[in-house]
Amino acid sequence: MPRYALLVEYDGTPFLGWQRQTTGLSVQQVLEDAAAPLNGGVPASSAASGRTDAGVHAEGQVVELTIAADLPPLRVREALNFHSRPHPVSVLKVARASEGWSARFSCIKRGYRYRILNRRARPALLQGRVWHVQQPLDAALMHQSAQPLLGHHDFSAYRAAACQAKHALRTLDRLDVVQAGEDIMVIAEARSFLHHQVRNMVGTLVQVGLGKRKPDWPRLILDARDRTLAGQNAPPAGLTFMFAQYKTGLPWADGLGTSE
Amino acid sequence: MPRYALLVEYDGTPFLGWQRQTTGLSVQQVLEDAAAPLNGGVPASSAASGRTDAGVHAEGQVVELTIAADLPPLRVREALNFHSRPHPVSVLKVARASEGWSARFSCIKRGYRYRILNRRARPALLQGRVWHVQQPLDAALMHQSAQPLLGHHDFSAYRAAACQAKHALRTLDRLDVVQAGEDIMVIAEARSFLHHQVRNMVGTLVQVGLGKRKPDWPRLILDARDRTLAGQNAPPAGLTFMFAQYKTGLPWADGLGTSE
Repeated sequence: MPRYALLVEYDGTPFLGWQRQTTGLSVQQVLEDAAAPLNGGVPASSAASGRTDAGVHAEGQVVELTIAADLPPLRVREALNFHSRPHPVSVLKVARASEGWSARFSCIKRGYRYRILNRRARPALLQGRVWHVQQPLDAALMHQSAQPLLGHHDFSAYRAAACQAKHALRTLDRLDVVQAGEDIMVIAEARSFLHHQVRNMVGTLVQVGLGKRKPDWPRLILDARDRTLAGQNAPPAGLTFMFAQYKTGLPWADGLGTSE
Repeated sequence: MPRYALLVEYDGTPFLGWQRQTTGLSVQQVLEDAAAPLNGGVPASSAASGRTDAGVHAEGQVVELTIAADLPPLRVREALNFHSRPHPVSVLKVARASEGWSARFSCIKRGYRYRILNRRARPALLQGRVWHVQQPLDAALMHQSAQPLLGHHDFSAYRAAACQAKHALRTLDRLDVVQAGEDIMVIAEARSFLHHQVRNMVGTLVQVGLGKRKPDWPRLILDARDRTLAGQNAPPAGLTFMFAQYKTGLPWADGLGTSE
């Protein structure tokens, strides 16, 4: 059956996360149900590059979707965006997936952005999109204390208790903390992440930014490999899945015009 | 009674606009009701620099608020942000207002930003924050056609039928159209605007951007002074009140820390 790659944006607020659940609505269910009209009336099957948690957003999630109908990619996009209304899920681009390509297993790099609103007043326009931290953070110190986490390590200290990965060895390529006024962004990139790894790292860096821990603390925790030591798991609303990169770029059809 | 200036952010989506209405919730009502505990238990009275319409947002609305209690500005901010929950209205800064200062009449410049999402796929993360235009827009041509609107003119062609201003003479200081990928922003600045002026100008510029009208059309409409000729009134969701400027800067108390 024809297989497609989708570039997907979503607001994670109303969903239980990417993965289909029996207890409520997920992004996967919205997409698979929206694809039913292209799949003989039954929900299609899909897999994502990154299985985001409840409340986590995406600007560039990559999804593979198998449907019965053989349609031009732009037609697939139009149909999915029509049938997924009014849910805050939007398919930005569609490509035909090549033989053997997997959204999850072919991915060679994933990027996340974590956004902190660092001011006293609560967010109005960014409600549900940021972690609101009211006490002043030292972003430069957070950045400095993040750098010793780069490279190939056992990240057991930063994984979730429920993490199902076989081992905790990961290679962290980037962990930048950048500030623009009251906006503090943590940019994390790696081939893959453990469950809750980004949010646990952010929660730990915030302890340093608040002055409650010294800058060498995030690395000491890494070396201790004890997941009870790390800072709090930062709330999901601040996290956005930004991109998934593949060895061979995907042949996106992204014409602004209507489908052919 | 003590009078304060407030710098206010809000998401306009759930409100009937700035102004208090008997038919539903307004930003003014949220703030005046939140101020009741500082005002002997009765709603306070307030006025805004710009009376935004239903669905229009603000990042930097300036409001004057009169309350019975004489409190440090940071205490006023904390109380308003506490009592206005969970509405998406947040008081960012508070200053004591000097004698004779008026949020509306002392204002010497106002700034608006209008945001267009120019792509085929509908917005997920920016739902309610943009005008979604699916056909390709030529932003450079829009900018070019906007420049002949600058200066002192009779803007009758761009005012709302319901506009209550005594005359339509206004001085437009800035009308820039800037593009960043699929994001197109219109930046408008003037001492004051007529009702719907920014949205009517944006709707007209979009006709040029779509190639449906020539670049000299916005100016021809201005000169004709006939409000039935302009392009559609662009939807409110794309509009944000960015700033109000005063001859003398306001002595904002904006400490990150807790109130004194």
